[in-house]
Amino acid sequence: MSSSSASAAAGGVTSAVPPADIAEYALRLGDDALVLAQRMGEWISHAPELEEDVALANIGLDLLGQARMLLSYAGSILGLSEDELAYFRDESQFRCAHLMSLPRGDFAVTITRMLIVAGYQLELYERLSRSVDDTLSGIAAKAVKEVTYHFDHARDWAIRLGAGTPESHRRMVAALHLLWPHVDELFRGDELEARLVTAGIVVDSASLRAPALERIGSVLADASLEIPNVHAAAGGGRHGRPSEHLGHLLAEMQVLARRFPGATW
Amino acid sequence: MSSSSASAAAGGVTSAVPPADIAEYALRLGDDALVLAQRMGEWISHAPELEEDVALANIGLDLLGQARMLLSYAGSILGLSEDELAYFRDESQFRCAHLMSLPRGDFAVTITRMLIVAGYQLELYERLSRSVDDTLSGIAAKAVKEVTYHFDHARDWAIRLGAGTPESHRRMVAALHLLWPHVDELFRGDELEARLVTAGIVVDSASLRAPALERIGSVLADASLEIPNVHAAAGGGRHGRPSEHLGHLLAEMQVLARRFPGATW
Repeated sequence: MSSSSASAAAGGVTSAVPPADIAEYALRLGDDALVLAQRMGEWISHAPELEEDVALANIGLDLLGQARMLLSYAGSILGLSEDELAYFRDESQFRCAHLMSLPRGDFAVTITRMLIVAGYQLELYERLSRSVDDTLSGIAAKAVKEVTYHFDHARDWAIRLGAGTPESHRRMVAALHLLWPHVDELFRGDELEARLVTAGIVVDSASLRAPALERIGSVLADASLEIPNVHAAAGGGRHGRPSEHLGHLLAEMQVLARRFPGATW
Repeated sequence: MSSSSASAAAGGVTSAVPPADIAEYALRLGDDALVLAQRMGEWISHAPELEEDVALANIGLDLLGQARMLLSYAGSILGLSEDELAYFRDESQFRCAHLMSLPRGDFAVTITRMLIVAGYQLELYERLSRSVDDTLSGIAAKAVKEVTYHFDHARDWAIRLGAGTPESHRRMVAALHLLWPHVDELFRGDELEARLVTAGIVVDSASLRAPALERIGSVLADASLEIPNVHAAAGGGRHGRPSEHLGHLLAEMQVLARRFPGATW
């Protein structure tokens, strides 16, 4: 599908769905990227190699770029700027999945989270690049190239660590047990998403589950690791019930903009 | 001058000076860039605008790239890797000027430090790009382009803040008073530098003082600010007497590499 689709109106908003739905959806993906970018940023100067410091910083910058485009799109519908959305919403107004805001953890946690998130985003953005919404399809097409690199980078490290020393293997197993309860939330749809799926704007989150888990599971197998058998966490990040960790992250991220609102500082 | 200079030997090391002198000099510049990159990295997620978050991260990445090239060059002479130099030296073995390791401070401190350092580095790297040492001249030529952008970025902010609100002006004045005692150290030479100057490899630090201060002072004038009348601090960063702040910065930077030495983690 492309801009020639009869259902796509100017500005990328189809007439069949409330624009507020699209804004809400863009916030979900944008907040995922924004919050994970902050967690990646916490690695600056803490990576085990200078080369990895650079790689993690570049991945964080990719995510920040995706966040800016998605928040700008949501803001264009809501009448708000990307900065107003990033710095002046409270935690209950953020829409990121819990997986994104969990603490940085050790290097194994960061690599495992990157593997999971990039595997999910690869399936998501590949499909979203064929959205009838021109803005979303354009953002997604650019993101596919970036998250492909993120996934490859995470895969290389996951194999190096999972199939490495007993200590590095043990840490990867621990990281998987810590993070996996929060994977389920990524693949849960809701009524808002269903409306957008019907309009051809977005893809059903549940339909991403099998291909994403196969993609991730294949890497884990190569890394002498496996998907742990754990219960799914309650989640709620998409609906105003953020993880307990988001508040502290936002406090750090928002302090300067809130202390000096406006363009003079 | 170029590689055709008779005094330049293979590998960029002239025969007239001990290679260890060149390694030590490269460490000085490399440590400046590395330590400042860490301080820039602390801004990730704390800048007042998303666009500025991206800009500061990119500037940090430029500095990290310069640090890697300079440490790799020093390491090629010393028989050490860039990672061994970054992660396994103690604070007394670092060679960065005190100005680089001072705490992040507020946004005005960061902008003021960027203005001062980029103004200094612009003069330094422009001259160093004509070194008879091919490696140093190549690193410097690349760095000139990067620090030109850093300086322009700092200038725009310095003017916006210095000539902005009473509060932003007050903070810029405070930042200048905090940082300026540490500017003098940038322009102090020593015997090692003198040997390298004689060989045409590096430039006399003292000769950078007038043009750099004119460059910086011109921006300050446009920003309704002026160079404060303060005494120079003792310094000693180039000679194993680091600022009191370097130890904590290195503890954070080095913890992971030291906990898991070697390539298996």
